[in-house]
Amino acid sequence: MSGDERWKGYRGPAREALIRFGVGVWEDVWLRSRKGEFRGLVLPRNETADDRHVVLKLETGYNVGIAADSILDVVSKGRREAHYHIPEREFPTDPDKPRVTLLGTGGTIASRLDYRTGAVIPAFSPGELYGSVPELADICNLRTEKLYAVFSENMGPEQWIGLATAVAREIESGVDGIVIGHGTDTMHHTAAVLSFMVQDPPVPIVMVGSQRSSDRPSSDAALNLIHAALTAARSDIAEVLVCMFGPTSDRYGLLHRGTRVRKMHSSSRSTFRTIGDIPVALVSREEGVRPLRRDYRKRRKDRRVRLDAVFDDRVGIVYYYPGMKPDVVDALVERGYRGIVIAGTGLGHVNKPLYPALRRAVDAGVHVFMTVQTLWGYVQMYVYDTGRDLMDLGVVPAANMLPEVAYMKLGWVLGHTHDRDEVRRLMRTPVANEVTPREPPDGYLVLQGGLPEVERFLKKHRM
Amino acid sequence: MSGDERWKGYRGPAREALIRFGVGVWEDVWLRSRKGEFRGLVLPRNETADDRHVVLKLETGYNVGIAADSILDVVSKGRREAHYHIPEREFPTDPDKPRVTLLGTGGTIASRLDYRTGAVIPAFSPGELYGSVPELADICNLRTEKLYAVFSENMGPEQWIGLATAVAREIESGVDGIVIGHGTDTMHHTAAVLSFMVQDPPVPIVMVGSQRSSDRPSSDAALNLIHAALTAARSDIAEVLVCMFGPTSDRYGLLHRGTRVRKMHSSSRSTFRTIGDIPVALVSREEGVRPLRRDYRKRRKDRRVRLDAVFDDRVGIVYYYPGMKPDVVDALVERGYRGIVIAGTGLGHVNKPLYPALRRAVDAGVHVFMTVQTLWGYVQMYVYDTGRDLMDLGVVPAANMLPEVAYMKLGWVLGHTHDRDEVRRLMRTPVANEVTPREPPDGYLVLQGGLPEVERFLKKHRM
Repeated sequence: MSGDERWKGYRGPAREALIRFGVGVWEDVWLRSRKGEFRGLVLPRNETADDRHVVLKLETGYNVGIAADSILDVVSKGRREAHYHIPEREFPTDPDKPRVTLLGTGGTIASRLDYRTGAVIPAFSPGELYGSVPELADICNLRTEKLYAVFSENMGPEQWIGLATAVAREIESGVDGIVIGHGTDTMHHTAAVLSFMVQDPPVPIVMVGSQRSSDRPSSDAALNLIHAALTAARSDIAEVLVCMFGPTSDRYGLLHRGTRVRKMHSSSRSTFRTIGDIPVALVSREEGVRPLRRDYRKRRKDRRVRLDAVFDDRVGIVYYYPGMKPDVVDALVERGYRGIVIAGTGLGHVNKPLYPALRRAVDAGVHVFMTVQTLWGYVQMYVYDTGRDLMDLGVVPAANMLPEVAYMKLGWVLGHTHDRDEVRRLMRTPVANEVTPREPPDGYLVLQGGLPEVERFLKKHRM
Repeated sequence: MSGDERWKGYRGPAREALIRFGVGVWEDVWLRSRKGEFRGLVLPRNETADDRHVVLKLETGYNVGIAADSILDVVSKGRREAHYHIPEREFPTDPDKPRVTLLGTGGTIASRLDYRTGAVIPAFSPGELYGSVPELADICNLRTEKLYAVFSENMGPEQWIGLATAVAREIESGVDGIVIGHGTDTMHHTAAVLSFMVQDPPVPIVMVGSQRSSDRPSSDAALNLIHAALTAARSDIAEVLVCMFGPTSDRYGLLHRGTRVRKMHSSSRSTFRTIGDIPVALVSREEGVRPLRRDYRKRRKDRRVRLDAVFDDRVGIVYYYPGMKPDVVDALVERGYRGIVIAGTGLGHVNKPLYPALRRAVDAGVHVFMTVQTLWGYVQMYVYDTGRDLMDLGVVPAANMLPEVAYMKLGWVLGHTHDRDEVRRLMRTPVANEVTPREPPDGYLVLQGGLPEVERFLKKHRM
């Protein structure tokens, strides 16, 4: 084996460390570093990776990067090269099945670890997906299109507009549903902005991702994808939805409204939660889509969709913390921001020293809206004098819009107008349930548990 | 009745509106404004109130302020003056009972609506509290001391240091427990900073407040106060705790660790939640304090406490949103901030354009730590190249510290040192369980429901 093969992809200090300890890629090693001890497989790296880390695949399935200069000792336990490639099979066509388009933006949906390079690569062509998740062919005729391949934290206005445009184009071309593969980090942000940019769609628009890639035994990738395809192909719910793992079991997934969902756990599969409301539906292979409510927008036969893909990026979120100084607000105004969403404490509060800065912001033409960092519950600025003072300064309460959703909506509204009254009117006019007239009292508590809780809920609400 | 009495406290446009429609304070009115229709009692105002709002007490118990210039019509339904004053009774002394000091900072704990002025005034002297909540005398000998009277969003470094100092002084003077009355908005922030400033206390330090003032039938004020007094007087848990309403019933309260708690609902009584862990204990009148875990710091007989009350206020939280531009970070550096806590997406991510700004921040001597805005779960920056890149820039992962807690800890640490290695060492050394070695898998899901869930949990964990 040549050195290039033995230290495949490694350069600089990382390669030197491997040479120093006499180990190469595909060796099962015990490694001691200043950060701790690790047992795992030395993975090859791809050419664009940094040159400072040795990457091990641990037995848990996680990859860990260890700084070369922190390595104290490495002992090889033998070599065990894995060969893996995605088994590609031709996706069968069935004229009687619904047509679904899967738009890819990035993320690890139905991905596989590529043991040749150590990279996680997504299975993406219909043939690759069929090879990985054959159940898809029982559900729909699938077309795939890769729009982007970015970590979701790097999604921004350009990608949101591009994605919305692609969704509208696919709907007009006649598909029965859309699935969007997306990294989970900002899936809820994109779901919110799509809810504003693609209005009154006639078919489901279903966002999906996975918290654990398919090379791990506990992966949620295949199940989430099957649930999303089921929803897009067959469900009656023509809204922007997030389709992810249910609260505690792999027996069902949940469909969350694009404007009322948030990622609430950094690593759990059950990370997405409907906030201030209840999810729209359960979905499972056995029962299909089972609505938890009746007030959703219904699927239509026509192909009409209103694409309204604009975004003014001079918008930011100010997340309040006690002791905050007014310079945080002043800085945004000075730098030309045109919209600020405050995530205040309690019913929508910030400290007194911020008031003059907010006044200066409003006077400078900045549109300032208040949300709550408690996430659940409404802004209520009429209760205390302090809230009324803030409103007198021109700060507008945004009811129970989530801070992230208010940010997306304000950017979208400012893409249309900067007229103060019109901005307020548009912000206050719900487009896609981003503000709800009330939060169900049990929405805060219910559906956090397992299937028994869900069954109780359904029974209580006679669904 | 003189005009001064009839429009008590009203000035300017608000007074003119009352005169125009021929109604005065203590009149039960039907009021139509451009914002909607209201039925309620016109409350008098105090002299410092603004002059633009008429305040009604609605039948729900909420007060609502209505802008005078939006009022279209007011019809009086008659007058019904309420006379209320807090029944003051001498607090009985019993030498066999524990001694508790209640320190007041503000908030609506055991408050009453003062119908003479319309203001919510706290019952605060021992005699007033005894008159309001006589059960307190069965629990302890109470001393009260009013440190501040501020809305909790206005608490800042000066108040935190003053409060910590008062707590230490009371402990050294020999009390058996401390109760701190605090507004709920930032109760968890103050609980976190106290956990760092008052170390290794020998007695319980219990923060308490209420979500609904005692003039409302659904008030949690008295119950929370009783629970807090019980905990301070009798419990074995010598930590900084938040004592608030349990998840779904008024049968018990929960004791949350000061560093692992967050306000999660803007108006519900069940607003405080332990995040990434399970609460320390249940507390009820019937059963007293019932621990849910065994790893708490135990009460001691000695009076030793380590007061370490410092805070460098040149610290801020940057709450990441997709599309964020680097100028947000640059602005803090330029304005002389010395510490930044990022609340990143997913496992601790921000977009690529922020990297150079973070590099500039670190090069300028700013200490940058990463937390997760999912609230539950850990930062894990070893998993993706992007995380490793951020660490190479000098961004330090803060494990599962909540963003607010990391902010408080960083301000406290920078009060001691600005040496880079020492700051990192202190941030990584847990003081009061602000970082935990693991999050219980059921902590995310359990104890969100009612007593049956709690009972199941206790049984499962054999407690």
